[in-house]
Amino acid sequence: MDLVRRVSAMAEIARQARVRGRRIGLVPTLGALHDGHLALVGAVRERTDLVVVSIFVNPTQFGPEEDFAAYPRNLARDTDLCIAAGVDCVFAPPADDLYPQGPPTWVEVEGPSARLEGASRPGHFRGVTTVVLKLLHVVRPHVAAFGQKDAQQAWIARRMIHDLLLDVEVVVTPTLRDTDGLALSSRNAYLSVTERVAACAIPRALDAAREARTSPEATAESVVAAARAVLGAEGTLRVDYVELVDAGSFERATSLDGERLLLVAVWSGRTRLLDNVTL
Amino acid sequence: MDLVRRVSAMAEIARQARVRGRRIGLVPTLGALHDGHLALVGAVRERTDLVVVSIFVNPTQFGPEEDFAAYPRNLARDTDLCIAAGVDCVFAPPADDLYPQGPPTWVEVEGPSARLEGASRPGHFRGVTTVVLKLLHVVRPHVAAFGQKDAQQAWIARRMIHDLLLDVEVVVTPTLRDTDGLALSSRNAYLSVTERVAACAIPRALDAAREARTSPEATAESVVAAARAVLGAEGTLRVDYVELVDAGSFERATSLDGERLLLVAVWSGRTRLLDNVTL
Repeated sequence: MDLVRRVSAMAEIARQARVRGRRIGLVPTLGALHDGHLALVGAVRERTDLVVVSIFVNPTQFGPEEDFAAYPRNLARDTDLCIAAGVDCVFAPPADDLYPQGPPTWVEVEGPSARLEGASRPGHFRGVTTVVLKLLHVVRPHVAAFGQKDAQQAWIARRMIHDLLLDVEVVVTPTLRDTDGLALSSRNAYLSVTERVAACAIPRALDAAREARTSPEATAESVVAAARAVLGAEGTLRVDYVELVDAGSFERATSLDGERLLLVAVWSGRTRLLDNVTL
Repeated sequence: MDLVRRVSAMAEIARQARVRGRRIGLVPTLGALHDGHLALVGAVRERTDLVVVSIFVNPTQFGPEEDFAAYPRNLARDTDLCIAAGVDCVFAPPADDLYPQGPPTWVEVEGPSARLEGASRPGHFRGVTTVVLKLLHVVRPHVAAFGQKDAQQAWIARRMIHDLLLDVEVVVTPTLRDTDGLALSSRNAYLSVTERVAACAIPRALDAAREARTSPEATAESVVAAARAVLGAEGTLRVDYVELVDAGSFERATSLDGERLLLVAVWSGRTRLLDNVTL
């Protein structure tokens, strides 16, 4: 497996692969890989000949009070996992390579970028879309994969790719869960034992919403309330938002007609956790 | 010559050209072509095998009070000029193709986008960079050409391409002038005879600045003042700005050390005209 550190080297690998007619797949990550990332790798490997995993803790998507410095970094372990998963190329560039000196260029999807995660983390999605576009330009993939666990991110990345007329197929893979139900996330490593036990109310809250959805009298309000009740019963959690959105437009949904996503953001201790369920 | 109207058709032409190892060149225009555009075509043709001229009056780079509706449109004449100039492909898409429905994605270069033209035309450069990036994604050129007449636009496009890590060579061609000295521009068509005579003070002002630069006591202020004096003597002109910038950073220059650009924006009647000279 190739470990590629420089943008110029990655661009040359992509160029040669394209010349030879190979199909390229990209899994953009912040590293600290877990089985959720490896499921993305599997989905991309089925569709392409050259699987690239990018590992880059992107500073521009973290707020000044957030966990950029503390974010787990372990390139040796990540590359071992990638080798075992049949990845062809790990692209782990230095920040200077992805952010050349000079006035920065920003890419931003209007509308949904300012809501939910965007409201709680101002500038977050601008950082995400900007770095994803740079990675797409360097790696030039035919397929890029995002996880449904970060549903809003996946929606915004897909929207950017579509609106900017990039010829990239977007694949979104289902959320993987631990045996206790908690969605896999690199940030789970921050949780103490008691914080983790409390956090397990999140998947139970999503189950309660799904259950509430089956009632003949179910409404947008009743499914949100069912999830909120479970989260509220776990006294140590702090709810950031529980919101129902239309899966197509990512606008707030006031009815249950059509595909709906129930999105949850919750603090357990000092760790912010996301999860969601399709209703 | 191919006249291509749809994004999907243009993308397929670009894909096939790339597979065959042909080098693609792009000249992005708003149409109403003149010899300045054809010089861009010539510069691109020297460097590539497939020359694409895009013709698109991009709504997002016009302000609500500006001349979007009045901007000259003449596809038949433009395509005749392109055929005569040896262009391989005119790409003239409908707005719906370049701007799919849904929340828009914007691309913006921070800093210089807000000054000079950006201050006089809020949102202008955001519209320019967004549409240029879309065109680059569809046409996938190896080379793209911009005119030095719109120096700030050329600088910002180059900066965006560099910062977003696009593998596109940027070529900037010198300003062409009519026999009366006025820089070629599609907007010259708006000028009445008397407005045109007045507008010819613009190249004279640039000459005066160049002359002032040769003085041993020349300063940033003295070259700007020399240009302003010529423009001020032409009573019917209204000066928007006269500014000296560093050609590398596009920041305002307070000295004459290093390559400098003197930029001028002037209204003659209801027509806004740009010009510049390297000092």
